[in-house]
Amino acid sequence: MRVDTQLIPVPPYPDKLPNRTVVVIDILRAGSVIVHALSQGATEVIPVTTVEEAFDRAKTFPPGTTLLGGERGSRKIEGFDLGNSPEEYTAERVRGKRVILTTTNGTKAFHLVSAATEIFVGSFFNVTETANRCLQRGRDILLFASGSRGHFSLEDSVFGGMLVDRMLKRAGKSIHLSDASRAAHVLYQRFEGNLVEAFLLSNHGKDLVELGLGDDLACCSKIDQTTLVPIFKDGVIRAS
Amino acid sequence: MRVDTQLIPVPPYPDKLPNRTVVVIDILRAGSVIVHALSQGATEVIPVTTVEEAFDRAKTFPPGTTLLGGERGSRKIEGFDLGNSPEEYTAERVRGKRVILTTTNGTKAFHLVSAATEIFVGSFFNVTETANRCLQRGRDILLFASGSRGHFSLEDSVFGGMLVDRMLKRAGKSIHLSDASRAAHVLYQRFEGNLVEAFLLSNHGKDLVELGLGDDLACCSKIDQTTLVPIFKDGVIRAS
Repeated sequence: MRVDTQLIPVPPYPDKLPNRTVVVIDILRAGSVIVHALSQGATEVIPVTTVEEAFDRAKTFPPGTTLLGGERGSRKIEGFDLGNSPEEYTAERVRGKRVILTTTNGTKAFHLVSAATEIFVGSFFNVTETANRCLQRGRDILLFASGSRGHFSLEDSVFGGMLVDRMLKRAGKSIHLSDASRAAHVLYQRFEGNLVEAFLLSNHGKDLVELGLGDDLACCSKIDQTTLVPIFKDGVIRAS
Repeated sequence: MRVDTQLIPVPPYPDKLPNRTVVVIDILRAGSVIVHALSQGATEVIPVTTVEEAFDRAKTFPPGTTLLGGERGSRKIEGFDLGNSPEEYTAERVRGKRVILTTTNGTKAFHLVSAATEIFVGSFFNVTETANRCLQRGRDILLFASGSRGHFSLEDSVFGGMLVDRMLKRAGKSIHLSDASRAAHVLYQRFEGNLVEAFLLSNHGKDLVELGLGDDLACCSKIDQTTLVPIFKDGVIRAS
């Protein structure tokens, strides 16, 4: 089983999507929000790329069934119900509701990989179960880092390396790593004892601290809070 | 001074080239060949993308002045004078000669970054002087990894991390690292004591060993053999 990692959010080579399981990664913070919202009882998350599209999609659903969430410049969008901090997505707010989400990086990533056979959402909250699910599928795997404004982001790659680590520990020599997956694994090993250190070194993590959103870093570093692994299919993310 | 690293050989964002010093990196093996050939007295290296172009360019120069070098599938090209192993480029073979070079990854990289203000060729052979020269220029820096067949390669990023390390040690806090540069630095720190280990873990390094070219790995890992830093300008690479 081959494990590849796309370190930069550019369109993957066409041969990297068919017959693959893809894990979309956006640790700070859309991926973490999606996993948390579904684990708290949201019925589905619809990722859209623009604020206008979010408002338009909301109008197509019955009143009271839908919440608008996301960020621009890391801040909550005017007229939206929720920002992009996982802890805003409490059971009280989201249970039984649909979330329409638009963020700078993560929501675009789903559209770049939509030709894959199966698309999971991974975060530290569900890391072990995401690795298990990838192995169960038996297909080659692409870990897709959403990055930060089109660039490489340290935290997404460290997380990719943790998935690699979990898979190696469970499946050992049947796992063939690309150079990018090996690099991600080295990055994870460096920050294994202190994930928040990696977040604080990353440019996006520093931006969040400056905006007063530093609590999100500790939150997004929590490991194995749930066994839920969201699946993106036909434009919608649901619990699997 | 900002130090950015392009980890994958895709066209850089347009804002990453103007007013920048770029270092093109192709450790296994074109970058190492270029630095070595010029240090042994070759007058210039002309990187071209196709075999046909190499033959055509050679015909435009007086007989006996030009050598054809490079590889396809890591092997010497039929009708060429030299392959892609640095040690073939001895003073006896190359002194006073022009080399026309075509390789799978490295020679393409020059064309992707040709809009940069100044373009150096870095390799372990000239790592310290390459870092010094970048700092002297005072511009922002882009380290451009040529990768392997369009993908991330471990050895190029480890070398990028060594350049970062040299710059940090000399210029300290005036250096601002992108997340990709920080990741490269972590990779270098992991393999600092044994660069060949990184080469042997990389997919391209493994291919070279299988083809009987394993000696090139030890060769390409030699540090600070020269203070020559080649410059690519107007399609030609010369000693600076």
